[in-house]
Amino acid sequence: MAMTSQKIKVAVLGATGAVGQQFIRLLHNHPMFEIAALCASDRSEGKRYDEAVHWILDTDIPAGVRGLALQATDAAMVHSQNPEIRFAFSALPNESAEQAEPAFAKAGMLVFSNASKYRMALDVPLVITEVNHDHLNLLRHQRIARGWAGGIVCNTNCTVSGPALSLKPLHEQFGVKRVFAVSMQAASGAGYPGVASLDLIDNAIPYIKGEEEKLQAETCKLLGTLGNRSINDAAIDVSAHCNRVAVMDGHLVTMSVELATAATPEECAAAMHDWRCAAVAGLPTAPDQPVVVRTEPDRPQPRRDRNTGHGMSAVVGRVRPEPLFGKYGVKFITLAHNTIRGAAGGSVLNAEMVVRKELF
Amino acid sequence: MAMTSQKIKVAVLGATGAVGQQFIRLLHNHPMFEIAALCASDRSEGKRYDEAVHWILDTDIPAGVRGLALQATDAAMVHSQNPEIRFAFSALPNESAEQAEPAFAKAGMLVFSNASKYRMALDVPLVITEVNHDHLNLLRHQRIARGWAGGIVCNTNCTVSGPALSLKPLHEQFGVKRVFAVSMQAASGAGYPGVASLDLIDNAIPYIKGEEEKLQAETCKLLGTLGNRSINDAAIDVSAHCNRVAVMDGHLVTMSVELATAATPEECAAAMHDWRCAAVAGLPTAPDQPVVVRTEPDRPQPRRDRNTGHGMSAVVGRVRPEPLFGKYGVKFITLAHNTIRGAAGGSVLNAEMVVRKELF
Amino acid sequence: MAMTSQKIKVAVLGATGAVGQQFIRLLHNHPMFEIAALCASDRSEGKRYDEAVHWILDTDIPAGVRGLALQATDAAMVHSQNPEIRFAFSALPNESAEQAEPAFAKAGMLVFSNASKYRMALDVPLVITEVNHDHLNLLRHQRIARGWAGGIVCNTNCTVSGPALSLKPLHEQFGVKRVFAVSMQAASGAGYPGVASLDLIDNAIPYIKGEEEKLQAETCKLLGTLGNRSINDAAIDVSAHCNRVAVMDGHLVTMSVELATAATPEECAAAMHDWRCAAVAGLPTAPDQPVVVRTEPDRPQPRRDRNTGHGMSAVVGRVRPEPLFGKYGVKFITLAHNTIRGAAGGSVLNAEMVVRKELF
Amino acid sequence: MAMTSQKIKVAVLGATGAVGQQFIRLLHNHPMFEIAALCASDRSEGKRYDEAVHWILDTDIPAGVRGLALQATDAAMVHSQNPEIRFAFSALPNESAEQAEPAFAKAGMLVFSNASKYRMALDVPLVITEVNHDHLNLLRHQRIARGWAGGIVCNTNCTVSGPALSLKPLHEQFGVKRVFAVSMQAASGAGYPGVASLDLIDNAIPYIKGEEEKLQAETCKLLGTLGNRSINDAAIDVSAHCNRVAVMDGHLVTMSVELATAATPEECAAAMHDWRCAAVAGLPTAPDQPVVVRTEPDRPQPRRDRNTGHGMSAVVGRVRPEPLFGKYGVKFITLAHNTIRGAAGGSVLNAEMVVRKELF
Repeated sequence: MAMTSQKIKVAVLGATGAVGQQFIRLLHNHPMFEIAALCASDRSEGKRYDEAVHWILDTDIPAGVRGLALQATDAAMVHSQNPEIRFAFSALPNESAEQAEPAFAKAGMLVFSNASKYRMALDVPLVITEVNHDHLNLLRHQRIARGWAGGIVCNTNCTVSGPALSLKPLHEQFGVKRVFAVSMQAASGAGYPGVASLDLIDNAIPYIKGEEEKLQAETCKLLGTLGNRSINDAAIDVSAHCNRVAVMDGHLVTMSVELATAATPEECAAAMHDWRCAAVAGLPTAPDQPVVVRTEPDRPQPRRDRNTGHGMSAVVGRVRPEPLFGKYGVKFITLAHNTIRGAAGGSVLNAEMVVRKELF
Repeated sequence: MAMTSQKIKVAVLGATGAVGQQFIRLLHNHPMFEIAALCASDRSEGKRYDEAVHWILDTDIPAGVRGLALQATDAAMVHSQNPEIRFAFSALPNESAEQAEPAFAKAGMLVFSNASKYRMALDVPLVITEVNHDHLNLLRHQRIARGWAGGIVCNTNCTVSGPALSLKPLHEQFGVKRVFAVSMQAASGAGYPGVASLDLIDNAIPYIKGEEEKLQAETCKLLGTLGNRSINDAAIDVSAHCNRVAVMDGHLVTMSVELATAATPEECAAAMHDWRCAAVAGLPTAPDQPVVVRTEPDRPQPRRDRNTGHGMSAVVGRVRPEPLFGKYGVKFITLAHNTIRGAAGGSVLNAEMVVRKELF
Repeated sequence: MAMTSQKIKVAVLGATGAVGQQFIRLLHNHPMFEIAALCASDRSEGKRYDEAVHWILDTDIPAGVRGLALQATDAAMVHSQNPEIRFAFSALPNESAEQAEPAFAKAGMLVFSNASKYRMALDVPLVITEVNHDHLNLLRHQRIARGWAGGIVCNTNCTVSGPALSLKPLHEQFGVKRVFAVSMQAASGAGYPGVASLDLIDNAIPYIKGEEEKLQAETCKLLGTLGNRSINDAAIDVSAHCNRVAVMDGHLVTMSVELATAATPEECAAAMHDWRCAAVAGLPTAPDQPVVVRTEPDRPQPRRDRNTGHGMSAVVGRVRPEPLFGKYGVKFITLAHNTIRGAAGGSVLNAEMVVRKELF
Repeated sequence: MAMTSQKIKVAVLGATGAVGQQFIRLLHNHPMFEIAALCASDRSEGKRYDEAVHWILDTDIPAGVRGLALQATDAAMVHSQNPEIRFAFSALPNESAEQAEPAFAKAGMLVFSNASKYRMALDVPLVITEVNHDHLNLLRHQRIARGWAGGIVCNTNCTVSGPALSLKPLHEQFGVKRVFAVSMQAASGAGYPGVASLDLIDNAIPYIKGEEEKLQAETCKLLGTLGNRSINDAAIDVSAHCNRVAVMDGHLVTMSVELATAATPEECAAAMHDWRCAAVAGLPTAPDQPVVVRTEPDRPQPRRDRNTGHGMSAVVGRVRPEPLFGKYGVKFITLAHNTIRGAAGGSVLNAEMVVRKELF
């Protein structure tokens, strides 16, 4: 589909939650999309958005959205009321996503999901646009296999986005064999209200349920290659420790990487810094540079660097030798904004790419 | 020397700083030691302690210490005024320690140092009491070699204490070959004023100068074996990422460990939990258990666990398989109180052991 | 009743919550009380305490309490299973307290409540032990009026304890006419999970629902005089602004006070510092000094001073002239530990006083 | 002077500090000003800006500024090297400002000072542009009296800006007689490194040196009226408690205000919300609305509201009756961004007004 003056109508599912709010912030003036429905839980149905939401972002609710009435998360109803809605940006948690997302897909909408429920399903593309937009082609197979008019495209877990973006150019140039990754994750990764103050004041929590497994599995699917009906996972061994720290937004991840072919830290830094994805050029949400490599000794830092590329760039720093892997080793730190690149922004960019590829 | 009713007179060097304050807190009612001199920088000389110090601990200045007059950090003067002073607990930073600590050693005092300056010197014992108290015997050689009546015993870097305590029983039972360690360190590790609020509010800093190198080098010396005139370092490859997070006290370190012989996580947990050091039994500052292994999924946490064993136990949690090392791998998290076990408390326990061994 | 070797059996209501945990910590080795029942919501009934609770204190669950089975919050059942239970320490929120607390009172137990529901009821004593223990005598009237074998004694709102303790000696000596009070309250005042991290990182919240009204009303009842069937409120005008800040425990309140008779700041400081309540002398939970006045320019601070008197003393600082009230004015800052003095500890001390007065 | 395509050349004094960095951020693309000199302490002289500065803002150093060479803070030298420099934006601390600012004024430059040194000098205008831009006319007298070709214009203390902006419309419409103000101030108010993490983690500090006196004195000068050779202070009694809390930017101040004529909270809110200063209309740094009144129960909050009007609006909330002042009373909370409105942004707007008034 060519971009015309006619914007694509979209729904936001889970519109009152933390990620739903980011969707609204990113979509309200979007050149390609127009919010046509806001869905929330049944108890909010019929309420004005600004009355139902506990808005937590540091910018105000967009004026055009304040007065919109919330609808139930009912695919058939949404479709019947507005058959022009083509995309559904979903900020639903797993327990709601399990039923709702397939229902929206069946009703003809393309769902951009932030839940983990369908990420590892064989026929569901799990996509960070610059990393593996070719996986979006799985949608064709998915529709046939499931008999859906729409479909489901998944976002990665928010913690994976920084590591996957920074590993991609290394994997392309040198091959990646093993990764030791340790995250220091922001509070917003747990949604709202999420982590209690009493757990984070003067504290850090060395555990986030399910997160390490996701980081390990999703990295391999993201860096995998597209097969006929599924993805051939990359043969990368990933081991993760996931931790929560007293930061609002921005997940830091330390990376100790073993490459398949020897490369110096300088070569690795150049590979990451110079990497571009031509296919996303010009898309409204695509950052100029998917990975920005900083050279100061103490960067990236969450508060100071998370908004690089409007929150869509991964920021890498301290690229240096990893002594335990000898000439095949490199270590560095990577940061990505977890509610933008790792959630709403990632979905929006995926949707822009689906439009460019005319996959809907 | 038998413990008699006569306490050993001690000096505290750097008495007004963050670690100096911990020394005073730990020594003011100590059954074996008695504070006989408080030394600080020249500009504080002659002042009452409570007027010169900016006391930052959450307990009050001990009553008996408030009115003591500060002395210059002048070994000859301290010795001439009170020749009975046998030990000097040093919280001096490197730049002062370089000159002052040898001067106190030469003047006949045994210096328990928290500076990094002499840690890697061949004839200087670097000691965590339960881990390698036998290294204290280097003192005999040190005195001869340097012609000192006293000597220098070093504490490890505060970040090393948790990893070294938890690796020791693993190394004894299974051998340790490789370690990937990532720290989340407390603000107090940088002294006072140390880290600016503007750098830690809603932030984390992925860099602490010199820390990674220390963690790598000191671990090997600590787990090494005593030779005639020096330590034979353990052949362990350690790679570290060191980070600062918004926590007061307590350094968390994630550990991914490759063992020399296969062991299950359960065997590793048992090895750590069951480990005791008979030689320290009954020493006033020795915790009942050098390593406490917790089984909850989300512990240890700095605020909730740092005071285990009065801040002298390392606390380990999440002992689980390290997939990248197969049956030789184990991963876990370790925590130690950085200003107690990792600094003042570690020195005091070393001093207690020196008394028990009659090494002065 | 004389204190005998026979401890009084007590129940804890709301035993798994934040204040319930403080009750357990304070009661588990108490010389006068013995925990005989732990009550929680129905869904926890029958579970072991350590399995049902998300323990958030920085000390461990007392060993003797770990294995206790939770009971439903059913007064008749608790009484029939153990008729010896005389006291019920209630950490119930208002919505549960409304029904449950009168039920326990009717079943013969004396309820020490932390809910706000019955605080302003005419026949219910609202008591900070040292401030107005004589109000406990209302219990006699309450029992007759309500036909209860037991009764209800209320604790103040946690924010009130610091102001009320520091105003009491001023009111006694000089009379208090007007108070402008502004609180900076700790996160734990909102229970657990309470305030979301996303609301407190790099932030402060200038609003706590219902808190200002409570601070205004309860202060007057606490400083009021005992009548036959109710309290004659003190004629003090109190105006409050209540705020939440990123602190774990310890509510700071700035106080600008207009006195009825002129007094210098020094006289006010002396009045507060010298004030003792003879009636509480020797009670296990009573601090030596109900109000500690510090003279450093920058104290009290929540983290450094909240544990004064084991968390039972109010700490006052910066006592200085209040220019807007001329020679009748004084201003200062007051701090109290909100979950100890302002909640569980306050109730326990009230209970100790009830025992001493043989009011049950 | 009419605004021409020719920008006014300016110097930044104290260019490497926290406020200096804000000046650079605000000035680097400014339509009226052009940075022509960056001055710092002698030890930085000659260094490139990006090598000398420890940049702490969350945006990057402007590209055009990175490579500029730092100069000594030497008025004669700066003037001789570039006589076109007309304005000097000064972020100097008091101890440097005392000598340097008069020297720059004497050398012909108009100094926009953030130091407190000259704020209360009779012939120095202390100006928040919308509040009292007419006071800038004192400059004419100042130049004659001091024999300066340039001059000094002072900014208020950062804490005063929110209170003064919100009091101005109340004072105009109803008269302000008495104010009880309690601040919760951000860490950045103390510069960099400023407040130590160890003092703010899990803590609040109820004292900031000199701040209460400034808040009291400066408010009266700001709201005063312009006389021939000095300002006639407003007859307002202000009493302040100043506190530091764990917030990056944005000072909250609670206000309890006694008016000279009765007014309802609604009238007060309208007075503040509707207030505009026609004289600043169209100036680049002037916000659309100097005071924004919010109606949610829990706003303003520092993190969520400090950037209102690009950090130049004061944000007021919770406008409600002040019971202690009866029908003359109103209470509310006010917030201003301390390093923008309360420092660099305030100076830049003052400078823009000086240009509009052709006062240089």
